[in-house]
Amino acid sequence: MSLFQHSVDISFGDCDPAGLVFYPNYFRWMDATFHAFLHIRAGGHASLCKSLGARGIGLMESRLMFRSPANEGERLLYEIDNISWEPRSLTLTYSASAEGRHVLEGMERRGVFVMDGARMKAADLCSLKDSLQ
Amino acid sequence: MSLFQHSVDISFGDCDPAGLVFYPNYFRWMDATFHAFLHIRAGGHASLCKSLGARGIGLMESRLMFRSPANEGERLLYEIDNISWEPRSLTLTYSASAEGRHVLEGMERRGVFVMDGARMKAADLCSLKDSLQ
Amino acid sequence: MSLFQHSVDISFGDCDPAGLVFYPNYFRWMDATFHAFLHIRAGGHASLCKSLGARGIGLMESRLMFRSPANEGERLLYEIDNISWEPRSLTLTYSASAEGRHVLEGMERRGVFVMDGARMKAADLCSLKDSLQ
Amino acid sequence: MSLFQHSVDISFGDCDPAGLVFYPNYFRWMDATFHAFLHIRAGGHASLCKSLGARGIGLMESRLMFRSPANEGERLLYEIDNISWEPRSLTLTYSASAEGRHVLEGMERRGVFVMDGARMKAADLCSLKDSLQ
Repeated sequence: MSLFQHSVDISFGDCDPAGLVFYPNYFRWMDATFHAFLHIRAGGHASLCKSLGARGIGLMESRLMFRSPANEGERLLYEIDNISWEPRSLTLTYSASAEGRHVLEGMERRGVFVMDGARMKAADLCSLKDSLQ
Repeated sequence: MSLFQHSVDISFGDCDPAGLVFYPNYFRWMDATFHAFLHIRAGGHASLCKSLGARGIGLMESRLMFRSPANEGERLLYEIDNISWEPRSLTLTYSASAEGRHVLEGMERRGVFVMDGARMKAADLCSLKDSLQ
Repeated sequence: MSLFQHSVDISFGDCDPAGLVFYPNYFRWMDATFHAFLHIRAGGHASLCKSLGARGIGLMESRLMFRSPANEGERLLYEIDNISWEPRSLTLTYSASAEGRHVLEGMERRGVFVMDGARMKAADLCSLKDSLQ
Repeated sequence: MSLFQHSVDISFGDCDPAGLVFYPNYFRWMDATFHAFLHIRAGGHASLCKSLGARGIGLMESRLMFRSPANEGERLLYEIDNISWEPRSLTLTYSASAEGRHVLEGMERRGVFVMDGARMKAADLCSLKDSLQ
């Protein structure tokens, strides 16, 4: 049972001269899955940042492992499989499939970034955890 | 009555530091609307190019007029309003709306490009017209 | 004599399955040319918006005419050929070439958008004109 | 001493509503660094695939760790720090900095993919290794 699902249609322009998805697009869609999840659970990134006093819920790390190619015209189903919480970061794990075929799995480690003078720092995540659960 | 409809969900990453859609994305979605139309009518760009002996159904001109801003979290509905045919180009007109609000209108002028030695040239469109109607 | 020049290297991932530049990238690079121009002339979009009290210097219209294809590995030279000023919009004309070969010409019509309650409106351009000249 | 360097100028449209680089762009630039390296060492992806009988030099895994934010107007310097070879994959490690500030490090694991009937499989890398060294 995944926590959230988000589907994406692969278009011609998402693919490269080898005819396969240009891989940064897979990261773009993973990010879009996260933001769609924020909309459903907490009204979206902007209102969440406002209530948290944060500049953004940004990335510390992001990773994808590609298991089979996906093609133009296919619908990709992204799923958030799990979220684990540490004091100053959360780690989301994802997988995606196309027509039942496993395409990739991946992760994002994110923090809530607040301004500390001219620098950004990762804030405590208690409020975000409350908002998303 | 439009000829074809294609919807797009605007994500956080589609927007720029002003909080509005980064405008080349509107062109990306117009192109995606065209390619979704090709899939429905003619099996997609790749199979169509194969049957036409063409390298691509590429652009001669593209233009958008922006009427109102669209925001993250909104669903954009693109429509192909009309296609007009000339001997070596077709002109598609588009419009898009978000929740009933008119967002943009635009056009693409495209040709069927075939290789002529090392150069590309725009081919006669009779076969494409047959395929799309 | 152009007003400003900006060069771009075309990478593999900028191209589509037909092996040609995915056309929305040409708009992305036209926009990047404009923003590089803002940096040189007026310290960039953010500081300019701050001094103008504006949300953004956004688009009313954008258009490209494609004259010859450009390929991976080529360097594109974008040029701002002219800027014409109207009371509430400015129109920039562009051209781009690759290794001396004319690739495209295009235009952007932009306005300075300020908030008017919950709506945006196009503001008078006197201050922007002073900043850019 | 890095094996290869590639610089990128961060533009307004590369950034998101939080005013920071939209993170999939960092992967796009890592890929562009790899392809610029292929051009210098082996004439580019297309000619290399032709000589290898391959469809593409594609991804098995890609990962970035973000150390400090980078901003519009800054120049990012990507470096290929190392390449390690296994029988059917190569792993490239990267780092990037902006004005001497460490911004990220990352990796790509890639294979040479050839068609095996209707499926793709990872081929032996001897020829690629010869080409890149």
